[in-house]
Amino acid sequence: MSKKRDYSVYLVTDRPLCAGRDLLRIIEEAVAGGATIVQLREKDATAREFFELARAAKDLLDRLGVPLIINDRVDVALAVDADGVHVGQKDLPYAEVRKMVGPHKIVGLSVDTVEQALSVPDLEVVPGDGGFGPDYLGVGPVFPTNTKKDTSEVWGLDKLAELRRQTHQKLVGIGGVYVGNAADVIRAGADGVAVVSAICAAESPKQATEELAAAVMLGRGLE
Amino acid sequence: MSKKRDYSVYLVTDRPLCAGRDLLRIIEEAVAGGATIVQLREKDATAREFFELARAAKDLLDRLGVPLIINDRVDVALAVDADGVHVGQKDLPYAEVRKMVGPHKIVGLSVDTVEQALSVPDLEVVPGDGGFGPDYLGVGPVFPTNTKKDTSEVWGLDKLAELRRQTHQKLVGIGGVYVGNAADVIRAGADGVAVVSAICAAESPKQATEELAAAVMLGRGLE
Repeated sequence: MSKKRDYSVYLVTDRPLCAGRDLLRIIEEAVAGGATIVQLREKDATAREFFELARAAKDLLDRLGVPLIINDRVDVALAVDADGVHVGQKDLPYAEVRKMVGPHKIVGLSVDTVEQALSVPDLEVVPGDGGFGPDYLGVGPVFPTNTKKDTSEVWGLDKLAELRRQTHQKLVGIGGVYVGNAADVIRAGADGVAVVSAICAAESPKQATEELAAAVMLGRGLE
Repeated sequence: MSKKRDYSVYLVTDRPLCAGRDLLRIIEEAVAGGATIVQLREKDATAREFFELARAAKDLLDRLGVPLIINDRVDVALAVDADGVHVGQKDLPYAEVRKMVGPHKIVGLSVDTVEQALSVPDLEVVPGDGGFGPDYLGVGPVFPTNTKKDTSEVWGLDKLAELRRQTHQKLVGIGGVYVGNAADVIRAGADGVAVVSAICAAESPKQATEELAAAVMLGRGLE
């Protein structure tokens, strides 16, 4: 089944933030609330744990028609035939990742600065081609955040807007995004917003995602 | 270049044990002293660090004609075109790894018990085929050790010998092996001995490897 590539409401999972709740249940609720894509991020799991979780998430998200992205571990992504992989500047180099997964998988790349974003090889790939450049760039942290320990300098909305003016690449804003600022992130030029704790730690992940999706629509003037 | 697959003197690296010395220099010395295969194990490195180190080690070991094995990260192994990969029971399942790397790469699998070793699917592959079963089994810890934090029950020489009687698989003994007991490990039926600190932490990695290689020959009655 071909899944729609829509980065609007991008859930990044973090099990320690789930307050002991079942991650698959949270994913299911988030998708019911409007999450358009899901990334599994497991920084402390063994490869076996990550694989088992990814396999279960893939089954679930195949039924729901939503793409599954694996953070960092390209081998886990390949093993479960995930829809894509997301890498940062401390992970495997983008070009190596693309070689491994081929032209049809989604590959997302985190960038720390405008300069870095613009220096990505073959960045301005023909939309929908996906054979050369990353399918989207993760831009962040847009706002200060405590979720990731190794975050670099905060982008702010102005830098995001500056990058928007200089690239046709799909941009996903991440870091400190929540219902209260998601519309601003979209207005600054992001194609979508990625959240971790705003969904994972929410009392109702479904309702939190609905509100976030509404904020994204608001940012696009489609309220 | 096709490299000889010889598990006799198997160096597993551990940078924290290198006392700040350059890992590539230690690998070079170990090969000069008789190491027949080298596994890079990097449990705390980022994927990017692991990749860069693996790429440099691959260049070095290609020149020296010695196989490079990557621990756990199949994606790093693929990215640098390593000669093989080693996985344990907490890493990706063997069958998934073999699918990813194909029939020609070396795949080693750690086993914790005789029962586990004998239950590995397609274990008794035709020697030299490599298309189905693991190319070798890592058996350990043979002796008590502090190098790995998550070690399971100690095998001892008797259990190793018991496994030897029940399989044709290549066996590599690891865990607490040093010049003083390496011959015993070979006599118990191992095809090779894997060491970490006995080489990495040695004052002279070259001399330590020479002594270990001599102990292996002694164990084979080829003194």
